[in-house]
Amino acid sequence: MTFKDLHIISMKSFSRDMIDHVLNTAEMLEPIARDKTKSDILKGKVLGVMFFEPSTRTRMSFETAMMRLGGDVLSLGSVDASSIAKGETLADTIRVVDGYTNAIVLRHNKEGAAQLASEFSSVPILNAGDGAGHHPTQTFLDLYTIRRESHLDGLKIALAGDLKYGRTVHSLCYALSLYGAEITLISPKELRLPAEIIEDLKSRNIKVTETEAIEDAIEDIDVLYATRVQKERFPDPAEYRKVANSLLITPELLEKAKPELKVMHPLPRTNEIDPRVDNTKHACYFKQSFYGVPVRMALLALVMGALE
Amino acid sequence: MTFKDLHIISMKSFSRDMIDHVLNTAEMLEPIARDKTKSDILKGKVLGVMFFEPSTRTRMSFETAMMRLGGDVLSLGSVDASSIAKGETLADTIRVVDGYTNAIVLRHNKEGAAQLASEFSSVPILNAGDGAGHHPTQTFLDLYTIRRESHLDGLKIALAGDLKYGRTVHSLCYALSLYGAEITLISPKELRLPAEIIEDLKSRNIKVTETEAIEDAIEDIDVLYATRVQKERFPDPAEYRKVANSLLITPELLEKAKPELKVMHPLPRTNEIDPRVDNTKHACYFKQSFYGVPVRMALLALVMGALE
Amino acid sequence: MTFKDLHIISMKSFSRDMIDHVLNTAEMLEPIARDKTKSDILKGKVLGVMFFEPSTRTRMSFETAMMRLGGDVLSLGSVDASSIAKGETLADTIRVVDGYTNAIVLRHNKEGAAQLASEFSSVPILNAGDGAGHHPTQTFLDLYTIRRESHLDGLKIALAGDLKYGRTVHSLCYALSLYGAEITLISPKELRLPAEIIEDLKSRNIKVTETEAIEDAIEDIDVLYATRVQKERFPDPAEYRKVANSLLITPELLEKAKPELKVMHPLPRTNEIDPRVDNTKHACYFKQSFYGVPVRMALLALVMGALE
Repeated sequence: MTFKDLHIISMKSFSRDMIDHVLNTAEMLEPIARDKTKSDILKGKVLGVMFFEPSTRTRMSFETAMMRLGGDVLSLGSVDASSIAKGETLADTIRVVDGYTNAIVLRHNKEGAAQLASEFSSVPILNAGDGAGHHPTQTFLDLYTIRRESHLDGLKIALAGDLKYGRTVHSLCYALSLYGAEITLISPKELRLPAEIIEDLKSRNIKVTETEAIEDAIEDIDVLYATRVQKERFPDPAEYRKVANSLLITPELLEKAKPELKVMHPLPRTNEIDPRVDNTKHACYFKQSFYGVPVRMALLALVMGALE
Repeated sequence: MTFKDLHIISMKSFSRDMIDHVLNTAEMLEPIARDKTKSDILKGKVLGVMFFEPSTRTRMSFETAMMRLGGDVLSLGSVDASSIAKGETLADTIRVVDGYTNAIVLRHNKEGAAQLASEFSSVPILNAGDGAGHHPTQTFLDLYTIRRESHLDGLKIALAGDLKYGRTVHSLCYALSLYGAEITLISPKELRLPAEIIEDLKSRNIKVTETEAIEDAIEDIDVLYATRVQKERFPDPAEYRKVANSLLITPELLEKAKPELKVMHPLPRTNEIDPRVDNTKHACYFKQSFYGVPVRMALLALVMGALE
Repeated sequence: MTFKDLHIISMKSFSRDMIDHVLNTAEMLEPIARDKTKSDILKGKVLGVMFFEPSTRTRMSFETAMMRLGGDVLSLGSVDASSIAKGETLADTIRVVDGYTNAIVLRHNKEGAAQLASEFSSVPILNAGDGAGHHPTQTFLDLYTIRRESHLDGLKIALAGDLKYGRTVHSLCYALSLYGAEITLISPKELRLPAEIIEDLKSRNIKVTETEAIEDAIEDIDVLYATRVQKERFPDPAEYRKVANSLLITPELLEKAKPELKVMHPLPRTNEIDPRVDNTKHACYFKQSFYGVPVRMALLALVMGALE
């Protein structure tokens, strides 16, 4: 299986075999990231980092991945300071930067930007989030975290928070369906997972349950995946407080959970997780953030053809 | 011929022999840039990148050049975020940064800034544009592109667009005069090349012709060099539209050209070139942008004394 | 003596032996910085550079130090562009970045930020200034400069300028007291060194003298350390001009000094030093700035355990 020159735009183009290959590669590379040392796998290669909107965590994790593989990082810098202010099209910018680099990580505020970029680029594009569109490397690191800290096959997972607008969640649900997970969706009515996604999951023989409070699901699950609920979604502050409360993860709530339950969160968190959870064995979100490094190392090494 | 410790401030200090030496060095280094690999030529060296105004393309191309030579890049970062906001003089900033670096690339909004910097610096200064002043590395890459994609000796070139304010164009005309080019100047009356530059060219036995539409010159030339025409130069929008139209490069226009005609543009472009031109054999502007890498590699390696 | 995994938060936790060890290590590493070459001492290590407020000089000097040791630099970038805008706590940011890096340099506008960060970080934190708090690496480079260009034992030093708010000065006074210096404090009444610091110095048997004009002290001292006096501290512009005048360092003033007197300044300077001083043998501030590189190399190599 070769990923050489493959653009990483959306999870939808990945079969289970392809995903497994990425996760296996990440597992092989993880010791380099964990020991905080360096290899020569991408020595001499340059990664173009083009973030048209800020995403510090994703950017730093990609840059770390590139450095740990021995490569160099070339940054577009802040967008105000770029030719884009002079009215250059994304297509032109990509056709210039692809001449300097061996691969490009692109973050953009417009849906479809990564796809467009891939049509003009002579080097692989890695989509690091395109507006309301996709963010596949986040899904890969979520899957990797589940595999490393829990298990992918026969997984019972609850997804809690804003399931309507959360791009991450949609993509993760699709990927989990390839592994036959049982999914519990926990959200206020206003922020439920779109009906067409639920239908799609059911058509793949995935068991999907919906509820409004974490408490209803906590006893039986292996992974609790929390996402941010934005205050701005609620016109009524009282309503927001009620929702936030029914989604708050506390040590007291976790007493009802299985001992091996893992709590995940894509970070940054706001008020979804009580800081006292940080020191429990359930807390997995900082590890999850770290796993972004080996997963992105794997994707970078694969698309640049340094590993098969 | 040694360029060690030479400041690169303006094309005017370069003889034809010196220019040829830079271009020859760039040609020798081009395979590293083209194969997107890395050498050890500047290993252990640090390039200070001080951009007091944004110029993403130029900055990224210098940084890529440094990485491809095995060196490191130290960035001043954005100017708001710097000591300059605390009122430090350029002379003081340079005397600090020269203690950290092996060479400094300087972009500044004030004419003469690079010259001033060179008077205080103990390491070579490479002028990456100083306001209305000079931008020699752009001229070097233009010359390199012409040599690689067409030919420098006996060249018939047309320069189209804003020839009055276009710093790039003035410097390129001077350099081309060393190679005995025939130059056609295409611009609206308001944006003609300054008379003293035309006189200077003629005094060097350069054949100079002036016209207002590309159509008048297209049949006979080897290179068509387009530059941006800024809307803001025209108080009357109708006038701007008329001018923009007579300077627009289209596939239909290019049908009248020699098969080997090359279209160049320093980029970013706005409306000067119809995107349908991109896929013709005439389009040379993305290659031109790429050639910035080997040319800057050559200049960096030469002034740091790594190559003779 | 091992510094491995030590957080560098404040000078107060350093004994004279520990300081000497840092300075000795810096002296050993200085040739690499001076020859502008590179070692493999921190090869494969990544330094996280988190500047929550700009400090170009300090940042560039840390980044240069890391590069000269063969390591890589991972930058948080500008804070507007970071998760901090989304409301993430410093503790969370640190716990993410420590997973990517081998050490973290932190600059923050809030006093106590570095201490807080160190409580959450699994990698060593180097405090690069925390508001009105500490800035230990500046003190180390000041001490190193004095040792290299003058002498630490039996030193007669005058500190001139804003001694009230100048964090640098407080920390330097404390450190100098370990070496038994004689200290002259030169400042307007409004900006005198706080009484408790003077008492503390005297309790350590340090001879402290106070005056308002450099002229009173110039004849007898080995080092004159000037700091910025901010106009904003003075409601009356006339008062500011009077003060600035009595603190201005000119070649004429220096004629009364010992031939070996060294003038230091943490930079950026505004009007404290006449530019004509730059070319005298007394000027030491650009060297001082350069010495930031070997000193930070020493600290980085020590806390990451690459040197003992």
